[in-house]
Amino acid sequence: MRNVLMTVSYDGTNYYGFQTQPGGNTIQDHLEAAIAHLTGEEVKIHGSGRTDAGVHAREQPFHFITSSHIPIERWRMALNGRLPSDIRVIGAKEVPLDFHSRRSAKRKTYRYSINGNRVPDVFGRNYQYHHPGKLDVSAMRESLACLIGTHDYTSFASRRSTKASHVRTIFSARIDVDTSLDISGSREQGIIHFYITGSGFLQHMVRIIMGTLLEIGEGKRRPEEMKVILEQKNRTAAGPTAESKGLMLWNVEYSEHV
Amino acid sequence: MRNVLMTVSYDGTNYYGFQTQPGGNTIQDHLEAAIAHLTGEEVKIHGSGRTDAGVHAREQPFHFITSSHIPIERWRMALNGRLPSDIRVIGAKEVPLDFHSRRSAKRKTYRYSINGNRVPDVFGRNYQYHHPGKLDVSAMRESLACLIGTHDYTSFASRRSTKASHVRTIFSARIDVDTSLDISGSREQGIIHFYITGSGFLQHMVRIIMGTLLEIGEGKRRPEEMKVILEQKNRTAAGPTAESKGLMLWNVEYSEHV
Repeated sequence: MRNVLMTVSYDGTNYYGFQTQPGGNTIQDHLEAAIAHLTGEEVKIHGSGRTDAGVHAREQPFHFITSSHIPIERWRMALNGRLPSDIRVIGAKEVPLDFHSRRSAKRKTYRYSINGNRVPDVFGRNYQYHHPGKLDVSAMRESLACLIGTHDYTSFASRRSTKASHVRTIFSARIDVDTSLDISGSREQGIIHFYITGSGFLQHMVRIIMGTLLEIGEGKRRPEEMKVILEQKNRTAAGPTAESKGLMLWNVEYSEHV
Repeated sequence: MRNVLMTVSYDGTNYYGFQTQPGGNTIQDHLEAAIAHLTGEEVKIHGSGRTDAGVHAREQPFHFITSSHIPIERWRMALNGRLPSDIRVIGAKEVPLDFHSRRSAKRKTYRYSINGNRVPDVFGRNYQYHHPGKLDVSAMRESLACLIGTHDYTSFASRRSTKASHVRTIFSARIDVDTSLDISGSREQGIIHFYITGSGFLQHMVRIIMGTLLEIGEGKRRPEEMKVILEQKNRTAAGPTAESKGLMLWNVEYSEHV
């Protein structure tokens, strides 16, 4: 038996998230079908985490145990030939049998992208939340910094979360503004990318953080409120859950020897 | 009567090009239907040029004559509300009645994009030609430079071209390599963007130039051959027509007072 770690990139627009759901049409379903087609073996893959319907992944790891003897360097292209064009396996390697793509993960980074320009970008329309109204980026930056550290993030977790503990660590968070994509020529806000790196994230956590940041950016809340919301440990204290299409799992890091 | 100049951005993946075709489903059809729905007026729009099926536009101008009294600043959003999400009007202004989006154009720029990385980029899959094999970018740069100037470009025109003259001017051409989009970590070629600016382009001209450049980049032809191909004024001398999805009309420029 071998433990195979793969990395997949997907455009989540047309899928119900990573993990198998009763309704089908998930990234996991497509990957398992491609593996079964290739090897004749029914395997269950284990993702580094779930993603919601419509969320994308630039680099999402998953692993599975297989008795197949297919050489590791052949897997990537063999699976891509059996997958839809919006799901691509980008890497494959063999790892120790005790490696687990979720439990062994050290750091996960998500990116959330907002198009702050007046006009939607047709080429990025599925990967950006369009918000042409004025956003106070420095207020958003100030309040985002309050979330860094080890905290109980109950205020930013779905009420449906079944986790015993809501304590997680956010290692870093930053906002990059890319004005090079501006195509209109007038005063524009550009594309605003939010990167958040943590030990792990609760259900909807990044999207609820983003929904709250948007209220701060719009001036509906003051930046100092972020700290108060965090301390309340109550979902109702935070803002709405931001639209899923702006969210992308950026990458997942493991300890060096993997 | 007013002459309205608009700029449209579109993802051409699902359309049969800009200009109305017997089979329908063109950018022009959708724009004319949206204008008719908004104004109740059947107008014919005039594009700055045609684009082939599957070709994209970042900024394509078009104009039309209308008797509508809708203020110019209202048109953009009113039309976008009546267009599919992969077609967006990004600008609108009133111009003199003798302005013509094609005949008044001074310079047009096209971009062709090649993903030279091993793995396709799922987010750019509809906007890049995937060529993971080794390309000699400096040979491509050298041969592209031979095309600059005023020449008869018959070798790079579709045999179906009906133009009386195939003389055009290419003002400038450059290749930009963007390795920042690399997601695999190994030695990769990056995303290679070709920008070509000219007075106008013949049918398939940029795609035939690209098909020829690809053969030079692959080492199938030497860079010096480009000059010989140009001088032959014969379509059979050049390479194949490159895939349309990598091509994007970048912008069209007019004289300053428009």
